[in-house]
Amino acid sequence: MSVLVVGSVALDSVQTPYGSADNAVGGAATYFALAASFFTPVRMVAAIGSDFPRQVLEDLHQRGVDLAGVETRPGRTLRWAGRYHEDMNIRDTLDLDLGVFADFAPRLPEAYRDSAFIFLANIDPRLQAIVLDQLPAPGVIGCDTMNHWILEKRSELERLLQRVGILVINDEEASLLSGERNIVRAARRILSMGPKTLLIKRGEYGVIQFSAESIFAVPAFPLEEVFDPTGAGDTFAGGFMGQLARSGQTNQAGIRRAIVYGSVMASFVVEDFSYRRLSTLTSDEIEHRYRQFVSLTDIEANGF
Amino acid sequence: MSVLVVGSVALDSVQTPYGSADNAVGGAATYFALAASFFTPVRMVAAIGSDFPRQVLEDLHQRGVDLAGVETRPGRTLRWAGRYHEDMNIRDTLDLDLGVFADFAPRLPEAYRDSAFIFLANIDPRLQAIVLDQLPAPGVIGCDTMNHWILEKRSELERLLQRVGILVINDEEASLLSGERNIVRAARRILSMGPKTLLIKRGEYGVIQFSAESIFAVPAFPLEEVFDPTGAGDTFAGGFMGQLARSGQTNQAGIRRAIVYGSVMASFVVEDFSYRRLSTLTSDEIEHRYRQFVSLTDIEANGF
Repeated sequence: MSVLVVGSVALDSVQTPYGSADNAVGGAATYFALAASFFTPVRMVAAIGSDFPRQVLEDLHQRGVDLAGVETRPGRTLRWAGRYHEDMNIRDTLDLDLGVFADFAPRLPEAYRDSAFIFLANIDPRLQAIVLDQLPAPGVIGCDTMNHWILEKRSELERLLQRVGILVINDEEASLLSGERNIVRAARRILSMGPKTLLIKRGEYGVIQFSAESIFAVPAFPLEEVFDPTGAGDTFAGGFMGQLARSGQTNQAGIRRAIVYGSVMASFVVEDFSYRRLSTLTSDEIEHRYRQFVSLTDIEANGF
Repeated sequence: MSVLVVGSVALDSVQTPYGSADNAVGGAATYFALAASFFTPVRMVAAIGSDFPRQVLEDLHQRGVDLAGVETRPGRTLRWAGRYHEDMNIRDTLDLDLGVFADFAPRLPEAYRDSAFIFLANIDPRLQAIVLDQLPAPGVIGCDTMNHWILEKRSELERLLQRVGILVINDEEASLLSGERNIVRAARRILSMGPKTLLIKRGEYGVIQFSAESIFAVPAFPLEEVFDPTGAGDTFAGGFMGQLARSGQTNQAGIRRAIVYGSVMASFVVEDFSYRRLSTLTSDEIEHRYRQFVSLTDIEANGF
C-alpha cells in the first residue's frame, strides 16, 4: 500500500553546535517521504518554487516517491533558518520566508484519490481538511500540528481531529492542546477529541503511545553524535506510516513495530545535516538498528 | 542475601503542587531500606537524633530492616525542607539542618561485616570509603552521589569510584561528573572511572543503563498523579539492589529485571507523601506493576 503525504518542502539554513548548513533541502513532506520510501511507495503533495534544486526531485523519484502532486510555482521555495542551542532540544527560528507556500492549496491528482494511508504533516488545519475532503475513502489518517495552529486555529484543528485516527505531536504541543501538563491526563483529554491513537514525541527521550487499550513507550536510540535534529519528527512519522502501510497491520502489535521503525529512521537522520544520512541508508542498516532497539528495551532479555 | 545500606535518615518538610507535609520521615537510607525490604532482609547504617519518631523504627523493624547499625545520638535528626515547582522535575531546597548527621561516622556492627550487597547512598565520599574499609569481602557495591560532592570532593569521589561496581546517579550528575552533555559520551567517560555498570536516572523519562556490553533503557511508569517525587531515586535504588540481592543474578538479564523492580518501587512511592504508599504496598501490587512495565515496553507484543 502506498502512503500519501501532504506538507511543506523547504530550504533550511541550520546552525547546530556541530556546524551549519545553508539552503539545505528540508520540510516535513521531504523528510517524511524519504523515510517512508524505505518501506512503501509514497505519493507527495506539496508546492515548491522555481528555485528548487532539480536534483532533489530526481533523488525523490529514484526512491519511489511519486511527485505528481508536487506543484512547481513561480517564486521562491519556503525558507526556514534556525539555530539549535547547546541543549539541542531547544531551537530558535531566525527567519521564515513562506514563498510559494504562502498560498498553497493542496490539490490531489486523480490517481491519488484511492489512497488509504494518509499523513497530514504540519500545515494549516484548514488545508489538512481540504486534503481529506478530496479522499473518498481514507483509511488510516495520521496528522501532525504545531503550537501556532493550536493557538490560532483551535476550532478548525478540533474539527479536523474528529476525522484523524493517529495524532503525532510533541510533548509541548500535547500540553498546549490539552491544557494538561501531566502526560497521562493530557493523553486522555486528546483521545477524547477524536484520535484513537496518540503518539507523543519526546525528543531524546523517545516516543510514548496512548490509545484506549494500551500505553507503549520506546526510548530514543542513544547516539553519541546528534549533528542536526531538524526533521527528526517528520522522519519518525515517515518510518511509522511507511511501515504501517507496508505491513497493513494497524492493530497494537503492528503500531508498536511501526513506532520502532519510525524511531529507527529518526535515529539515522539526525546523524548528519538535512537528509544526507537517508541518502546512503540501506535496508540492512535499518533492520540492524531495529534489532538494537529490541535489545535496548527488552526487559526479559536472555541473550546477554 | 541481605543488603546493607548506609545513608541519611531525615525529617522532610515538602511542598508540592498537590499539598505539603511537615517533618515527614525521609532520607535516602529510609527510602532505600523500605523499598529493598520487599525483596530481601536489609541492614541499615545511619544516625538519628533523639527527636526521631520511635514508631518509624518499629515500622522498619516490622519490615525486616535490621537497625543494629542505626545510632541514636543526642540532638536533632537531619531536617530538609524543599519545594517542588509546577514542573516537578525541579525543586528548591528551602532549608537544611544537618543535626546529628553533621558528624556522622559510619560504624558497622560486627554482624554486618559479611555483607555482600552494599549500597552507599548519597553521603560524603570519604564516609562511603570508610564503610567499604570495614567490609572484608564486599561483593556488589552500589553507590550514589550528588553535585555537591562532585564539585567539592572530586578526588575522594574518584578514588571511591574505583572501588564501586554500580554507580546510580541522575542525568545532571552524570553530566557534571563526566564533563559531557551527551549521555553516551558521559557514560563512556564514567565507566572508565571504575564502575562496571552505570545507571542514569532521568526522572519522568525513566532509567538508562550503560555497561561495556550493553545499553538498556526503561521508561518511568506513566502516572496520572505524582504527589511527591521525594525519595524516588533512593526507592529505585532500594528496589534495584533488593532484587539483585534476592535473585543473586548479577548478569545483564538479572540487572535488567532489577532495574524494572527499582522502577516499579519508584512509581509507587511518588503516589503519596513520604513513604506512606510503601507502608500499604503488597507483593501482588509489585508483581502486577512489573507485568505492566513489560507490556509498556514490549516491542514484539502479541497479546494486544
